[in-house]
Amino acid sequence: MESQIEINDKKFLSELMTLKEQIKFKERFGLPQDLRDVVIAGMGGSGIVGSLFKELYSKLPVVLANSYELPDFAGKGTLVVAISYSGNTEETLAACREAKKRSASTVAITSGGALAQEAEKVVRIPSGLQPRSALGYMLMPLVNSFEACKDGCVDETYGILNDVDKDNSFGQRIAGEIFQGKYIPLVYGASPYASIAYRWSTQFNENSKLMAMWSNFPELNHNNTMALRAGYRMDELYPICLLSNKSERIMKRINATQEVTGMRFRQMIEPMGTSNLAQVMSLIHMGDYLTYHLAKLRGVDPLDVSAIESLKEKLK
Amino acid sequence: MESQIEINDKKFLSELMTLKEQIKFKERFGLPQDLRDVVIAGMGGSGIVGSLFKELYSKLPVVLANSYELPDFAGKGTLVVAISYSGNTEETLAACREAKKRSASTVAITSGGALAQEAEKVVRIPSGLQPRSALGYMLMPLVNSFEACKDGCVDETYGILNDVDKDNSFGQRIAGEIFQGKYIPLVYGASPYASIAYRWSTQFNENSKLMAMWSNFPELNHNNTMALRAGYRMDELYPICLLSNKSERIMKRINATQEVTGMRFRQMIEPMGTSNLAQVMSLIHMGDYLTYHLAKLRGVDPLDVSAIESLKEKLK
Repeated sequence: MESQIEINDKKFLSELMTLKEQIKFKERFGLPQDLRDVVIAGMGGSGIVGSLFKELYSKLPVVLANSYELPDFAGKGTLVVAISYSGNTEETLAACREAKKRSASTVAITSGGALAQEAEKVVRIPSGLQPRSALGYMLMPLVNSFEACKDGCVDETYGILNDVDKDNSFGQRIAGEIFQGKYIPLVYGASPYASIAYRWSTQFNENSKLMAMWSNFPELNHNNTMALRAGYRMDELYPICLLSNKSERIMKRINATQEVTGMRFRQMIEPMGTSNLAQVMSLIHMGDYLTYHLAKLRGVDPLDVSAIESLKEKLK
Repeated sequence: MESQIEINDKKFLSELMTLKEQIKFKERFGLPQDLRDVVIAGMGGSGIVGSLFKELYSKLPVVLANSYELPDFAGKGTLVVAISYSGNTEETLAACREAKKRSASTVAITSGGALAQEAEKVVRIPSGLQPRSALGYMLMPLVNSFEACKDGCVDETYGILNDVDKDNSFGQRIAGEIFQGKYIPLVYGASPYASIAYRWSTQFNENSKLMAMWSNFPELNHNNTMALRAGYRMDELYPICLLSNKSERIMKRINATQEVTGMRFRQMIEPMGTSNLAQVMSLIHMGDYLTYHLAKLRGVDPLDVSAIESLKEKLK
């Protein structure tokens, strides 16, 4: 007889394997006339979509709203994209309602819930997944609508995510090291793709049930660097570098940081593919698997988000 | 005979005590005609100025540039404010040069260096401080120029920072607990003032020479919460909550988070004053002192940023 945790395990893994299909999601929404700026409202696994999109697209000012409020400028000429997988995230609902009051254009990306009733336009995405496993469904309508991805990048990304699905033994190996050493993960990304490192840290939180640190190059060279060299409790951290931006200056910084501080990255993880979408999504998917494998080693349920659910209940 | 560390200690403390005077810095720059959006470029102790300003002012879209690049939209109609205390930060210089190529308006806030030669307008600020101790000089020209602060807030903030200078025994007490318990600080802020928590974490890095974790309400309720409840290594963290937004919903979240996860904040720190500027600056200044006291307890030099300096040398 399978235990509940084993069943959830299989469900979680099968969710991960849908990510490549999600990239083929073709929905798009029309952009309003006289569009001046974009606000993307969302929290957690839905909120990261806005951060990632902002790093992939910057032809218009994109400002994130990660709480109940909208920035003051949002109004006529602003497109507010409210993203909530469930459609019932109270912060995102409040932001969307405020957007309508201010005569901003509104689009919801959601599988349903109250949000689908609030926005002028709705992109409906398939339900039944964990929000953090539905990243592709939430991201692609933005990418498609703003044409933020070149021809061919969807096919490339599909192939690469499929490769990660087929072989993620590297994730198992790294998870093994983190588990054995009882380490706290320290994840560094590289600008402009800081959100990949943040996504990894939140996947450590939700899937593996542990806290993680994160920052990104070059910002960390202006603060973290002092702590890295001082070495206080550094041997308890597991430093991982995500090579999302392999520009010459950034690579030089990564090497110089190791030389100056004595800190050594346990892992330097290369993105796969050539398009921005493939590189970003490949690094994200590697983190999905690594944190999943770590959950298994720790004997915790990667699917379980009951504390977050209880909290939502208490807030009602 | 005083040791070098004692001398640096006194210098650092005297720098902290100038913050209240910095708030009275009256410089402002004229805003360009037909201004559509604002990009603020800066790194580390200068970069945090942009993050804080964005939380205090949102009548126009404000987008941060924390690396070498500018967002694609930046051009005519954009004001690029390049902030670098030294004026020689390579990332900020590159961003400012790019802004000129794209015919954006440029303002530099700097004590000198190459940046003062690059921008159309320059706000010169006094030199001789650590960038992280010159927050007021860098922030106030933005606050003044965009009129982001009501009458009276400068006087209120001055008085409050003066109070923190006179009595920061709370910081000494908390530093003592962190030192005794060999804790890793975990600092939570509250939206929209997430950067206060980030500033605390970087002050732990630079002043106390240790790594710290940070996030903010309500975002952390969508990820961290699972790790807080699971409890893995949680007894090694020292959770601090900065009550920068005491809205009813946020306060309810803070309490519910403790109930659901079993995590207890060691400190819930109240802002001082009534204006946004006073509240934000009072919390920041409390973190300045706490991390300074922790440096003293750890026997490290709060002024020392030699690893950051060596890194800059290596990158030349």
